[in-house]
Amino acid sequence: MNKEEFKKIEEFMLVCMKDCAHDRDHIYRVLYLALEIAKYEEDVNIDVLIAACLLHDIGRQDQFDDSRIRHEVAGSKKAYTFLLDNNWTKESARHVSDCILSHSYRGGNSPESIEAKILYDSDKLDATGTLGIARTLLYLGIASEPLYSLGDDGTVLDGSNDTQPSFLHEYKYKLEKIYDEFHTKRATEIGNERRASAATFYNNLLNEARTCYTYGMDEFFKIIK
Amino acid sequence: MNKEEFKKIEEFMLVCMKDCAHDRDHIYRVLYLALEIAKYEEDVNIDVLIAACLLHDIGRQDQFDDSRIRHEVAGSKKAYTFLLDNNWTKESARHVSDCILSHSYRGGNSPESIEAKILYDSDKLDATGTLGIARTLLYLGIASEPLYSLGDDGTVLDGSNDTQPSFLHEYKYKLEKIYDEFHTKRATEIGNERRASAATFYNNLLNEARTCYTYGMDEFFKIIK
Repeated sequence: MNKEEFKKIEEFMLVCMKDCAHDRDHIYRVLYLALEIAKYEEDVNIDVLIAACLLHDIGRQDQFDDSRIRHEVAGSKKAYTFLLDNNWTKESARHVSDCILSHSYRGGNSPESIEAKILYDSDKLDATGTLGIARTLLYLGIASEPLYSLGDDGTVLDGSNDTQPSFLHEYKYKLEKIYDEFHTKRATEIGNERRASAATFYNNLLNEARTCYTYGMDEFFKIIK
Repeated sequence: MNKEEFKKIEEFMLVCMKDCAHDRDHIYRVLYLALEIAKYEEDVNIDVLIAACLLHDIGRQDQFDDSRIRHEVAGSKKAYTFLLDNNWTKESARHVSDCILSHSYRGGNSPESIEAKILYDSDKLDATGTLGIARTLLYLGIASEPLYSLGDDGTVLDGSNDTQPSFLHEYKYKLEKIYDEFHTKRATEIGNERRASAATFYNNLLNEARTCYTYGMDEFFKIIK
């Protein structure tokens, strides 16, 4: 891929990216992680991989505007049309489109090609460790969701069994499970390097929140009895 | 304060609270921390303190709607009117109002009474440690600000000298400095217990982000040259 071809794809991507949890910086981290993972894999089509990384989240805004739309479905269609319009062959455009269709954690389409597996892994790596925690919190801010839920007795629930959306719930139901679901060896290694920092954050947050309630709740209910 | 009086203030507060970084849970953490700090101080007017904690952020929405409005100014006026309407004396309503006026980090009014100092400290404690990190990220999500800025050479800046709003910038310019600015001994102690977890998060985030760029940037520019 030459610089001019890259700039065309980048420009199209930038027009489509709007939220700060899936912003330009996320795209470049995914791209750079993908190139790192590709070093350890054989027969990777680098042009397909670069295009897939750059375009993987261009359907996000469609999903925001209408929650019935899956961003990976919208994005794969938009990417296919865009690449055909820019002189890619049908086969290569379909290859990129398939990578995008199978990159979503919740989408249910498994990545098949090595390029699709690398995109999946590099995108999921950006949800590991401290970066993953930070991006999840930005996203929950946009979605206006709380840090935790309270039980009927007023205690802070740890996210394991509570059903309402919150950061602690998202950690237990998604973030904590990502580490065992990579398709490549290098992504598993990088994920494992980051695993402890995410767990530490979860434990510290739960502990600090619970301590606040321990400090004052009994005292408070004595005062306003 | 009896339960009925408390419920009236709580109900008014809940109508005013809308964003998830300054939500109901923040109010209760501040209230419970304030009661913990009050145990170590003398001659605290607990009714004034409880009302000030509950009502301290009721001006937030006014500031969101019009950024020229300071939330502590709007909140102190709304609280004064509300308390007079609910049979508080002018003196007590003024006392609560003054606490609210001086609770803001950026407002420039120093807390004078012990109740104002306790409100200031308990509100700032909720910006320390892991809770402070988490709330800041929720808030930056709402404000659509990024995790970090990039330098002209494409490297991740650490927030110390960059001027654009980002999480790393907010950490260096606000979160890191809170720990030395408490008015009470107990708040300083609780802040110090939480200090290390915030610093760890900052260092991990910067390190993980920089590592991504190190992995792939050189490789990438070789490919698209």
